[in-house]
Amino acid sequence: MKALLCPGEGVQLVDRPEPRAGAGEVVLAVRSAGICNTDLELARGYMGFRGVLGHEFVGDVVEGPGGSRPPAKWAGRRVAAEINCACRGCPVCSQGHGNHCPTRTVLGILGRDGALAERIAVPLSTLHALPDALEDEQAVFVEPLAAALHAFDEVELARKDRVLLLGDGKLGLLIGLALADRRDQVARALAVGRHREKLAILAARGLEVALEQEFDEPAGFDLVIEATGSPHGLTSALKAVRPLGTLVLKSTYAGDASVDLAPIVVNELRVVGSRCGDFPRAIAALARGQVDPRPLISERFSLEDAERAFARAGEPGVIKVLVDPLRAG
Amino acid sequence: MKALLCPGEGVQLVDRPEPRAGAGEVVLAVRSAGICNTDLELARGYMGFRGVLGHEFVGDVVEGPGGSRPPAKWAGRRVAAEINCACRGCPVCSQGHGNHCPTRTVLGILGRDGALAERIAVPLSTLHALPDALEDEQAVFVEPLAAALHAFDEVELARKDRVLLLGDGKLGLLIGLALADRRDQVARALAVGRHREKLAILAARGLEVALEQEFDEPAGFDLVIEATGSPHGLTSALKAVRPLGTLVLKSTYAGDASVDLAPIVVNELRVVGSRCGDFPRAIAALARGQVDPRPLISERFSLEDAERAFARAGEPGVIKVLVDPLRAG
Repeated sequence: MKALLCPGEGVQLVDRPEPRAGAGEVVLAVRSAGICNTDLELARGYMGFRGVLGHEFVGDVVEGPGGSRPPAKWAGRRVAAEINCACRGCPVCSQGHGNHCPTRTVLGILGRDGALAERIAVPLSTLHALPDALEDEQAVFVEPLAAALHAFDEVELARKDRVLLLGDGKLGLLIGLALADRRDQVARALAVGRHREKLAILAARGLEVALEQEFDEPAGFDLVIEATGSPHGLTSALKAVRPLGTLVLKSTYAGDASVDLAPIVVNELRVVGSRCGDFPRAIAALARGQVDPRPLISERFSLEDAERAFARAGEPGVIKVLVDPLRAG
Repeated sequence: MKALLCPGEGVQLVDRPEPRAGAGEVVLAVRSAGICNTDLELARGYMGFRGVLGHEFVGDVVEGPGGSRPPAKWAGRRVAAEINCACRGCPVCSQGHGNHCPTRTVLGILGRDGALAERIAVPLSTLHALPDALEDEQAVFVEPLAAALHAFDEVELARKDRVLLLGDGKLGLLIGLALADRRDQVARALAVGRHREKLAILAARGLEVALEQEFDEPAGFDLVIEATGSPHGLTSALKAVRPLGTLVLKSTYAGDASVDLAPIVVNELRVVGSRCGDFPRAIAALARGQVDPRPLISERFSLEDAERAFARAGEPGVIKVLVDPLRAG
């Protein structure tokens, strides 16, 4: 089958043997897969990953262990799959924190091939059936939307709160859409980014928006969500949170960040790291139309054109690029 | 009067006019003052402070506004004084967060002379009377002990918790003594530092201790308290916290820290900045003997010898240096 491989650095469209499902696994035929910033960073050497990229996707259950038929419950079902494949036996997993299982593999990120391919093998335990009403181009956002919604899990929004979102990249915009859905719960909800046309997507959903270039010194926010993907954004975020306020970090950077961290202590901030989120909640938010991510789709490519798709995903101004293995090249 | 001045960089023993109390203030005759790491950093240019250093001290109330007699309640009382002088009128102060008042001055740190002098003027609102049973050499620790105890304010200790303290400097050791007082509330309490003789003070109070050099890779701690004062300590701390665990930051660094912050997001850590604490609680902990900081006193100097005292405070292996203006030079 065709697959987009990260051989350590960069990407390469290769021919690979089709994956076989192990015990407790199934093989999915990928219908559509998104490219996210983590993929771009992996291709720059982040995590030292070597393998097939891709962890945002929708697919059909087509095969069980060793080429057998899949369990009846799942056969032919269209699904999204969680990216963390936990051992389900260790103390961390027993406490319900499988996303942090120390021996976990992660689709297309850590020790396991991803979804920018015709087929992918995943544990049954990671599957979530998708409602028929959800189109593939919505369902492909389940994973990043789950991560976006998770930004609000460690904070209790209050009516008087002023909320600032920094970053209008792929993840930033999804968080912005989720914030727009919560707009009436807070006193102020502002998104600051670098791209007028991207911010317009959030403005259309009722969010206050501002260009970073024109909005130099935001300060005094009760909650700041940092999703710029750059150390510069972290510096801005640390200045923007009021004393005793909360900063949610959604960005991982490849490499060390040189940042003045004194405000964390001087202003006694609470900084919360936030990664993966709850799939059923994201599926529900999409199904109810609370969040419509389709305006974020910049372009769609066939799997044959996956290298071009990957390059395009890294270009300025481009938001979400989808790769559709069922699409003719 | 004599005073230890920070003219922007370094320190200098100078002759200054005695301070006068403004409205709502009193003048204190300083009995004893401690030198802390913040003082050492201020003398290296941190915060751009110019003025008399010193914010850990005990003194007697000797004068009211404009040279008048002090209010009867305070006249002649031996007191500790909080370091943050808040406006008491702004929204932040109204919410009870005077320590974060945006127009606050801070004794010997920001816009206000400190206590390494014969006399100091402070707002009445900052005063805390000291029990007679407390010796000066205990009472001089009220401010740093309040800060040390504050490290535990944003965390709820659980029986199963493994707690790691990083740093055996002046503040680290006080936190260690406070942790020793909580030893029975947690499963494990470990202090890691660089000085065998300093750690021995904590070991004597029942804490498990280890030399950093001999304890390379601490990991899996539910709570880590970072008090090393170095970016290197932050890097170790971020590795030592378990996924979903808590890191309390007590250190401020002069300058930018180049640190891999990815663990905050990947492991979804909660990072809490912690600065100043509650004075009455610290006074009570000293009075009840829950924390005895006297083993931390390395040396005592007269005010005439304050420059030498300051140099001594910065030497490796030295813990707390006190300057006693009542002591003959």
